[in-house]
Amino acid sequence: MSASELPLRQDVADRTHYGAVRPCAPVRLDSNENPWPPPPDLIDSIMEQIRSTVGGLHRYPDPMAPVVRGQLAEYLTGQTGFPVDQRNLWVGNGSNEILHQLLQAFGGPGRVLLGFAPSYRISPAVAASTDTRYVECRPGPDFALDVDAAVEAIAEHRPHVVFLDSPNNPTGLTVRHSDLRRILDAATGLVLVDEAYAEFSAAPSAVGLLDCYPRKLVVIRTMSKAFGIAGVRVGYLVAAPAVVEAMALVCLPYHLSTLTQAVAIAALTHRTGREHAELAMLVAERKRVSHALREQGFDVIPSDANFVLFGRFTDSAIAWQRLLDLGVLVRDVGVAHHLRATIGLLHDNDALLHATQILNHEGTSYVNGSSH
Amino acid sequence: MSASELPLRQDVADRTHYGAVRPCAPVRLDSNENPWPPPPDLIDSIMEQIRSTVGGLHRYPDPMAPVVRGQLAEYLTGQTGFPVDQRNLWVGNGSNEILHQLLQAFGGPGRVLLGFAPSYRISPAVAASTDTRYVECRPGPDFALDVDAAVEAIAEHRPHVVFLDSPNNPTGLTVRHSDLRRILDAATGLVLVDEAYAEFSAAPSAVGLLDCYPRKLVVIRTMSKAFGIAGVRVGYLVAAPAVVEAMALVCLPYHLSTLTQAVAIAALTHRTGREHAELAMLVAERKRVSHALREQGFDVIPSDANFVLFGRFTDSAIAWQRLLDLGVLVRDVGVAHHLRATIGLLHDNDALLHATQILNHEGTSYVNGSSH
Repeated sequence: MSASELPLRQDVADRTHYGAVRPCAPVRLDSNENPWPPPPDLIDSIMEQIRSTVGGLHRYPDPMAPVVRGQLAEYLTGQTGFPVDQRNLWVGNGSNEILHQLLQAFGGPGRVLLGFAPSYRISPAVAASTDTRYVECRPGPDFALDVDAAVEAIAEHRPHVVFLDSPNNPTGLTVRHSDLRRILDAATGLVLVDEAYAEFSAAPSAVGLLDCYPRKLVVIRTMSKAFGIAGVRVGYLVAAPAVVEAMALVCLPYHLSTLTQAVAIAALTHRTGREHAELAMLVAERKRVSHALREQGFDVIPSDANFVLFGRFTDSAIAWQRLLDLGVLVRDVGVAHHLRATIGLLHDNDALLHATQILNHEGTSYVNGSSH
Repeated sequence: MSASELPLRQDVADRTHYGAVRPCAPVRLDSNENPWPPPPDLIDSIMEQIRSTVGGLHRYPDPMAPVVRGQLAEYLTGQTGFPVDQRNLWVGNGSNEILHQLLQAFGGPGRVLLGFAPSYRISPAVAASTDTRYVECRPGPDFALDVDAAVEAIAEHRPHVVFLDSPNNPTGLTVRHSDLRRILDAATGLVLVDEAYAEFSAAPSAVGLLDCYPRKLVVIRTMSKAFGIAGVRVGYLVAAPAVVEAMALVCLPYHLSTLTQAVAIAALTHRTGREHAELAMLVAERKRVSHALREQGFDVIPSDANFVLFGRFTDSAIAWQRLLDLGVLVRDVGVAHHLRATIGLLHDNDALLHATQILNHEGTSYVNGSSH
């Protein structure tokens, strides 16, 4: 029996499973994960925190996750320099669930989500899964956000929700505060700013604009990247308390497990300063990889995140497969002639650069950087 | 600023947060949790399993959860007596997420979910959150499923999805296979049978009907009840592989955390036979509590689950508050003149029976069982 014999929605039948097929490769630079495994002292902290809660696993978790929210508020106040408190915080199973919950509350049938290309592919996916109409703005030159086009699109479509990511995934470009302000001023509904990669960037956080735009601005963050616990699935948002209250109305009962809360607490409590060194090293590696790729003749979009988008390839699908054959898994993000590579550990990045050099030498069937 | 100043959907603004406000009480019999904390050897098994995966938490989890699905298939084959395999299984963050994903794939705008009153309140809630139209069948005498009315309602509304729970929450009543077959025969879409409490019942599982109704039947289960790990949030479904493939199309990327998978594996691996003894003790306690409540003059619906629905109270809200004042937290499930009490440990149940006796002695303002 196939799915076509089920009463499946046609728009669902037409989808593909995001992230289901992840090829094996010695060097995994496809998912913008933090390359460092949790160090022994963080593991100890996690195990200790879990041991202190495991005896209560027969009970449902506290859906309001007050401890995690309080600690995230404290972290964020320090990281961004703008004071927020527990009432501004909401936590979910990854930023995907956060975005899904936001669209359940503020999107849906008859409502519009305005997004920007290129962007994290989850936003059109979540629009589809909440039956929100998705309208997309095309980018300006060099993939930069076209703010004039954005303001025009807002006037035309009056979107209930605007979604942008800064640093952007897959380009790594940051949206300037002045541009963000123009979008916020024009917006008729909410503006969601996904800052999943903010810790890799020196640019100021949009959290600093919350005071000015409490009715419009929602900042989305994650513990999957800088905190290096993608496997735990912790995403969160920062916004006016009224937005947080709305999330409590749409979330599934007991959505955040006791264990997820325990590990988030462990990771937030156990901050030794090593994180700063790791972030600095990734930023330094990003610069080294970007420079080396340019030296090899590639175009590299200037990135503020833990990945780089680079090209040009005659055919990015063929180049992706060739890199995989050489042992390096990157991501074909659907931007023509480009591929996205996560910044890994030194030897991962060396492997990437070695492989791109091979592609380069193999000729223009894979790379035509020489045309730039 | 209040939520009314946000572009919040009106239907969301009108909701209340399910499970957010859970009063404190010495005796917690409100959420149908398993009263036994994880025993030391299960805790060891959980800690060991987590320790073996914690080093990889910087990586995203495998969304297909193949090990958990394989082990669940094995467990279910043993528990129900009907062979299923990994391709029949899908796992989510609690059965709430499973139901949500099912309605994302098979419900939505322009589609109809047929449910039955009284029932687990999540089904109308998830219908609302997926913009699926919810149609409800009224119960027959003594809260039993009215199969004739169900078949008529199916003919009238041609629902894309029918939802029923067996044993039912909040009554504890089991739907007979002959009745289930009539509904399956009449159904034009999917029939979801939530068997969250199946392990407390001696009735055969609907899993046995999967071979006959592969295009229609989906059985939903959970590890929150019999397995006693409500805090971990593990729900699952059993269905034809095509249904499982549809779930992969609607789930959020990496929806099931590495830790959730690890603890599910630990609980499924670590089966010592003690579970059977615990289930038998809960069933014996259910019989004892039901009998004692009847002796006190209450109506008790015959339950196959780990809770009992009983009455009659002149005003169930007043009775609920009075029980809470006496230290016993039960659930007012919205069934007039009735309350639902989870079966706990011996001393919890004694506390309940002591409190209901007090209510009984306080007079008919709380209890009028004498009218039956």
